[in-house]
Amino acid sequence: MFQNFEVTARPEQGPPRLAQLRALMQAEGLAGFLVPRADAHQGEYVAPRDDRLAWLTGFTGSAGFCAALLEVAGVFVDGRYRTQVKSQVDLAHFTPQDSLNTPLGTWLKEQLPEGGKIGFDPWLYTTGQMETLIGELDGSAIELEPCANLIDQIWPDQPPAPDAPVSAHPIEFAGQSHASKRDQLGKGLAKSGHSAAILTLPDSICWLLNIRGADIPCNPVCHAFAILHASGAVDLFIEPSKLVDLGDHLGPEVAIHAPSGFMEAVAALEGKVLVDKQSIPVLITGVLGERAVLGQDPCALPKACKNSAEIEGAVQAHLRDGAAIVELLAWLDAQAPGSLTEIDVVKRLEAFRRQDNKLRNISFETISGTGPNGAIMHYRVSEESNATLEEGHLLVLDSGGQYLDGTTDITRTIAIGSPGEEERACFTRVLQGMIGMSRLRWPKGLGGAHIEMLGRLPLWMAGQDFDHGLGHGVGAYLSVHEGPQRLSRASTLPLQPGMILSNEPGYYREGAFGIRIENLLVVKEAEALAGGDDHRDMLDWQTLTLAPIDRRLIVPEILSPEERAWLNAYHGEVQAKLSGLVSEGAARWLAKACAPL
Amino acid sequence: MFQNFEVTARPEQGPPRLAQLRALMQAEGLAGFLVPRADAHQGEYVAPRDDRLAWLTGFTGSAGFCAALLEVAGVFVDGRYRTQVKSQVDLAHFTPQDSLNTPLGTWLKEQLPEGGKIGFDPWLYTTGQMETLIGELDGSAIELEPCANLIDQIWPDQPPAPDAPVSAHPIEFAGQSHASKRDQLGKGLAKSGHSAAILTLPDSICWLLNIRGADIPCNPVCHAFAILHASGAVDLFIEPSKLVDLGDHLGPEVAIHAPSGFMEAVAALEGKVLVDKQSIPVLITGVLGERAVLGQDPCALPKACKNSAEIEGAVQAHLRDGAAIVELLAWLDAQAPGSLTEIDVVKRLEAFRRQDNKLRNISFETISGTGPNGAIMHYRVSEESNATLEEGHLLVLDSGGQYLDGTTDITRTIAIGSPGEEERACFTRVLQGMIGMSRLRWPKGLGGAHIEMLGRLPLWMAGQDFDHGLGHGVGAYLSVHEGPQRLSRASTLPLQPGMILSNEPGYYREGAFGIRIENLLVVKEAEALAGGDDHRDMLDWQTLTLAPIDRRLIVPEILSPEERAWLNAYHGEVQAKLSGLVSEGAARWLAKACAPL
Repeated sequence: MFQNFEVTARPEQGPPRLAQLRALMQAEGLAGFLVPRADAHQGEYVAPRDDRLAWLTGFTGSAGFCAALLEVAGVFVDGRYRTQVKSQVDLAHFTPQDSLNTPLGTWLKEQLPEGGKIGFDPWLYTTGQMETLIGELDGSAIELEPCANLIDQIWPDQPPAPDAPVSAHPIEFAGQSHASKRDQLGKGLAKSGHSAAILTLPDSICWLLNIRGADIPCNPVCHAFAILHASGAVDLFIEPSKLVDLGDHLGPEVAIHAPSGFMEAVAALEGKVLVDKQSIPVLITGVLGERAVLGQDPCALPKACKNSAEIEGAVQAHLRDGAAIVELLAWLDAQAPGSLTEIDVVKRLEAFRRQDNKLRNISFETISGTGPNGAIMHYRVSEESNATLEEGHLLVLDSGGQYLDGTTDITRTIAIGSPGEEERACFTRVLQGMIGMSRLRWPKGLGGAHIEMLGRLPLWMAGQDFDHGLGHGVGAYLSVHEGPQRLSRASTLPLQPGMILSNEPGYYREGAFGIRIENLLVVKEAEALAGGDDHRDMLDWQTLTLAPIDRRLIVPEILSPEERAWLNAYHGEVQAKLSGLVSEGAARWLAKACAPL
Repeated sequence: MFQNFEVTARPEQGPPRLAQLRALMQAEGLAGFLVPRADAHQGEYVAPRDDRLAWLTGFTGSAGFCAALLEVAGVFVDGRYRTQVKSQVDLAHFTPQDSLNTPLGTWLKEQLPEGGKIGFDPWLYTTGQMETLIGELDGSAIELEPCANLIDQIWPDQPPAPDAPVSAHPIEFAGQSHASKRDQLGKGLAKSGHSAAILTLPDSICWLLNIRGADIPCNPVCHAFAILHASGAVDLFIEPSKLVDLGDHLGPEVAIHAPSGFMEAVAALEGKVLVDKQSIPVLITGVLGERAVLGQDPCALPKACKNSAEIEGAVQAHLRDGAAIVELLAWLDAQAPGSLTEIDVVKRLEAFRRQDNKLRNISFETISGTGPNGAIMHYRVSEESNATLEEGHLLVLDSGGQYLDGTTDITRTIAIGSPGEEERACFTRVLQGMIGMSRLRWPKGLGGAHIEMLGRLPLWMAGQDFDHGLGHGVGAYLSVHEGPQRLSRASTLPLQPGMILSNEPGYYREGAFGIRIENLLVVKEAEALAGGDDHRDMLDWQTLTLAPIDRRLIVPEILSPEERAWLNAYHGEVQAKLSGLVSEGAARWLAKACAPL
């Protein structure tokens, strides 16, 4: 099993560790110390040794930080984790804070009116984050002091740094050699007057050099740093022990160095050096000083715009992944309500995915939430939370696979027994939003902010909404959450052909049920329409995800003729492409599941 | 007639004036001089004496500027005026430039590689504009030199500054006394640590002091400057001769000064002074130096959020205006194709509006474009362009009135004779976009950028689009184009109850026909929906504009049941509210025009 269901942290672990941290803070003359849920690479997932926030507080969410002061310890989380944090930390010692509405600087000024020194690990904070914090602290006597990580000094059994072997990503899946990518990006740097760019994001480095690793759960990346020069040459800073399987893949223009030499190499750079403000450790911009040019990681956009080999890979991966989903749905449909738990479903789904020997990993921990658990957007099932699938429940099942040729991410909501009328009406609205976005054709130049309302419109018209973005970027055998493209009202970056995004409207009724439907889409040049005149060049979507949508949850009369036609065409495609890839029993089930509505 | 149809500028007027300007530039040691279509108040309309751009070049559009160098003179206009500028300037002497794709600074650097001094009138350029230009000129040897306006020195018969009398705006229409507004905004300034705010926008000053003027065509505003102090007191700088009719409306807390004292008063200000970066003349921030805080005009948002008296006024004004439109439509429907010109329609419409003695002015020059002229978005009909309404034409009629209780702006597209199938299909899509936005219910916190796609969606799905925003803010007996609210992909300012906006999708097929349908809407708190659960607080629209939509241009089968229901309900409301306000003949016509589809 890739996934486990252990409870990995307990509220009671926090207080004694917090006491140790405070003793160390006092010895160092610090009034506070910041513990983010981050490593030096600012990934969404961290290696166990970097999960300092969970170790200190018990909070295991994927974003947040603790500001430990001598008298109070604030645990800052966003709206997604408001409920979870309360059950995971000891509330007598840790005080949850809403990170959106309570800026850290404002809180620190309230807590420390007399000022004081706040320590932080400058590898774990970005230049952008520090700029914001410094701005918030303006006018106070609070000083920010970079220092060694105090947690590492009090964590006796801190796991070692990951050291998984790195492998070459085959050109048939990458579609472009690393020499060609380096050349192209190097020329871009030269044109914009930069001598080099510093890369710290693992998926950028892996994409650029066509390598993959296994340093992080569910993400086929390796931890490393890199300097891309305007010449196209690269200095790669990585533990040499990770490269034993790599052969001569990197070639003479990629020089390998131990990570210990990284800061010295940064210090020796000349000219203007491009760094990504949102991810560069503040330690590095401090060393660069005036040489640092704050911009965007030069790999971000070319990585987001998949080439034809990557798109073809995604198509193939989704055929395979869709077949596993169909096996799971067919199996699930044959089980009686009350006979299964959420974990049973997760295990069975992973088993179906593993039947195909091309599965490399799951792309994130499967979300399997039934009944009220379905309304918890980022629910992680554990042995303690594990609920039974009861008659009338909806099951939200959000999962994905990592394959050499692509990364998948799919959510289906499944009726257990006979669904209620209200559940069906809400499901149908969510489906209408999903279909509306899937059918869209739009002019070039627009970003997610300009179109994502379409995925919410049917809910809005019924007075409802959901509190997450409509979709995120997805990598090509890389991170399942990939920037910079997003279907979010915060993203004005123009959508471009080749970008893969999720389209996942939902609806969450707290304490009752949850709904989410998610397909992956790829942006493409829209084909010319038949008839009519004066057509503009536009973009539209190709749907990658293939799996039936539960017909028992659809109220057909609510759908427009166009929506119904889309659904029937989609189900027709699903059946045509998957029925030959699944077991006989699943194929029979699939034919019924895909019958026209 | 408020409107005239004269050709106000000719291409041949430009070259001799340009020669005079160049002689003066040489005498002053300048390599160039900038002539914007702007006055010191940055309004959309300017007084005749400020229309220096048209005088110099012949170009009469509402936005643009001329950069006159010794060898070349660039006339910079945006996409709306690309065609118009070519017919209005002498292309042997003036070179049209696309202001969006060719930044002025970039062009100047290309034209003047050796550098040189570029003169400009610092009353006519804002701090924001100058910041941008200085940024673009970075690294060049070009210097920007504030100077007296050279055009004023070579324009022998330049009209005098406007001096229309100012009147008090009655409290029954304003809904809030100027003392209350001054007190409220003054407290806001004090709270944000500002000692004062400088107001240069005429509609801000008129709104704040509940006064109206007539210094500008179609806009009931007066030219003035004001300083609002944190105490709520105001220093108003205005020609005293304009105030003869005002009595004691302004009271003791508003001190009147001659405009000549304005800069001295600015220089004497102490503390932090709020100025609007987008509209403050760079001359003023130069004098303020470190005291200037660049922000937003404090009147902008409260002015945009109309109070209940202003909304009730708008409702009343639209009843009156709708009745005039119905008279016009009924009359027009009785005329044979080929018997009327565009100007005939404008004259007749103004006459119908004038039948009600509450009309104070038109709110802008009526756009009356038939056939191919309808495809020119900002078409102004003149005696030379005046076309005949022919069988099969569509007529785009975009007009508005200024009434004491409100400002109107309405567009209807009218079939002359029997419309073609393609015209009807396009019209129906535009209508669907208009209806989609009118029906929308959306969560609080969103701006125009997040919802305006809905007005384009039916066109997009057919591969079509239009090249202007979906809507603009509208004032309360003030400017017909009012910020900061906009239904535009550039506007993320949250929409708030009381904001009035236009909803005006269109479609323009160059050389063939144009379509636009425009209603004014006001944002309101959405009423609770019947049935269902879990409803969020949302916003929706109240439609202000009342006039039938041409049923001959609608393809009923394209409309969804919800769209058809909206249209029938709207037509029912139009008939119920207007039939008692129009002549008997028009009422008979209205009953047919509003029959259910």
